[in-house]
Amino acid sequence: MKPLKIGVLLFPHVTALDLVGPVQVFAAATGAEVYLVWKDLAPVPVDSGYCIVPTATLETCPQVDLLCVPGGPGQVPLREDAELCQWLRRQGDAASWVTSVCTGSLLLGAAGLLKGYRAASHWNYREHLTAFGAIPDTGRVVQDRNRITGGGCTAGIDFALQVVAHIFGEQEAKEIQLFIEYAPQPPFNSGRPEDADELTVDRVKNRLANLRKALA
Amino acid sequence: MKPLKIGVLLFPHVTALDLVGPVQVFAAATGAEVYLVWKDLAPVPVDSGYCIVPTATLETCPQVDLLCVPGGPGQVPLREDAELCQWLRRQGDAASWVTSVCTGSLLLGAAGLLKGYRAASHWNYREHLTAFGAIPDTGRVVQDRNRITGGGCTAGIDFALQVVAHIFGEQEAKEIQLFIEYAPQPPFNSGRPEDADELTVDRVKNRLANLRKALA
Repeated sequence: MKPLKIGVLLFPHVTALDLVGPVQVFAAATGAEVYLVWKDLAPVPVDSGYCIVPTATLETCPQVDLLCVPGGPGQVPLREDAELCQWLRRQGDAASWVTSVCTGSLLLGAAGLLKGYRAASHWNYREHLTAFGAIPDTGRVVQDRNRITGGGCTAGIDFALQVVAHIFGEQEAKEIQLFIEYAPQPPFNSGRPEDADELTVDRVKNRLANLRKALA
Repeated sequence: MKPLKIGVLLFPHVTALDLVGPVQVFAAATGAEVYLVWKDLAPVPVDSGYCIVPTATLETCPQVDLLCVPGGPGQVPLREDAELCQWLRRQGDAASWVTSVCTGSLLLGAAGLLKGYRAASHWNYREHLTAFGAIPDTGRVVQDRNRITGGGCTAGIDFALQVVAHIFGEQEAKEIQLFIEYAPQPPFNSGRPEDADELTVDRVKNRLANLRKALA
């Protein structure tokens, strides 16, 4: 069987967990070939204070079967990056699957890949999807035809397991779920703005605004 | 307030998510200073096909307040690494908190840091803790005095949120939980051997055995 080529965009100030969660799951899928793609092969600084090294460039990455764009504060300036958006569009048009985690859906949107599609995003930025002709969906993992998009950050794990179940079958996904001991026990009921208290929501909105300011 | 220094061991063939999940949470804690520590600063290959770059060496890393050892197939040979075990013991003896995720607890054990302590580990390796005088505990996050250990891989997120709640307070942990949208929806009930079907458990045990063979 031909390997399934998975291309994951690795850009400066990506939210590390948006990328590493899904890649942990994808890399465990039998027959998957994962590429971490950026403009060059120099180590890329992530949002949380260290660097991850790309394994392919926009030029050397082959046409992928599944394109995955993680999110993070670094996606904001990239929405205006013509070279990158063109690469995403070209890959996305020919890929079997076009996917994202967190605010990665906004970058997919900027590349014109979500027009008329329902899509997920980080809760604080979900409504921004309308600017790109996408239809915001509150689901943690949202599939609309060949677009599969995940909610914020940790949703990438649920997203990737669902992607693997869909493409490689449920048995494969169940094995990977056990492999990574994914039986979560969140300590608080504070993972969605609908659940968190008002003070927490306000303070997180401030944190997010400050993060963006720091990068602007 | 003095920053809380957190040292996370980054070793060859670490399970990437064991490290990146907790670091995503720790790095978001106000006043935390995170070091990814290895013997040198060259990019370190992780278990899932790419490299992460350390930010400190065993020599340059200051005495940390919280020591965290993630797991993965690469911890097996390190249990015999006298230089590393000595560093872990020295740091661990002086740290306020000694912690691990997944099979990182086996490396803590090898360094002599879990004698007489209850500890968690990846479900498939939990019983190996007894070889180091530790008491295996089936909890997803286990605290015994100043030792806090997490179960397999994804347990690192629950672990880190509990650590932050304990050290920085519940409000801080709740904010980070919302920030990373941690309201998990696992697609299957297959995250623990107690829940998964027999075929899945057998197949994952085989996968794990093969991983170890590949590195031996």
